[in-house]
Amino acid sequence: MTQDKVKRTTVHIKGRSYTIVGNEKSEHIRLIAGLVDDKMKEIHEKNKSLDTTQLAVLTALNTMNDYMKLQEDYEILQKLIDEKED
Amino acid sequence: MTQDKVKRTTVHIKGRSYTIVGNEKSEHIRLIAGLVDDKMKEIHEKNKSLDTTQLAVLTALNTMNDYMKLQEDYEILQKLIDEKED
Repeated sequence: MTQDKVKRTTVHIKGRSYTIVGNEKSEHIRLIAGLVDDKMKEIHEKNKSLDTTQLAVLTALNTMNDYMKLQEDYEILQKLIDEKED
Repeated sequence: MTQDKVKRTTVHIKGRSYTIVGNEKSEHIRLIAGLVDDKMKEIHEKNKSLDTTQLAVLTALNTMNDYMKLQEDYEILQKLIDEKED
């Protein structure tokens, strides 16, 4: 199936290009890249002296924090479902 | 309440220090920083030629992708609960 083939998608973040290789659709990769770019810009607005590495690390920290919080919420929902099924 | 005061936590990622200001506990910030650092190392292992900026951006993209997937799963669970309540 050609549709399941590995895709190469190039995105541009802060003046550099990144080629992402994987099964994800190009539109999905571009959406993710747009979200990362937005978050980097948001942090940059608050602190203009940060360089791209610092902006990207802070964006990763920020997103990882959001991920952990969502994971906690997910586990709470999961427990709720398990309790209802008992 | 002094416990609710804004905290400053310094973490070290790829030879640079980042001071995170917020209400989160220092242990939590260090856990998040450790996860980001691990992810950067993992990507670096796969491609040794990437510089720190590229590693940080790819880590941010990777984490954002995980976040979006978890959000989809969360919404599926949420719908399941809503359907059961109807």
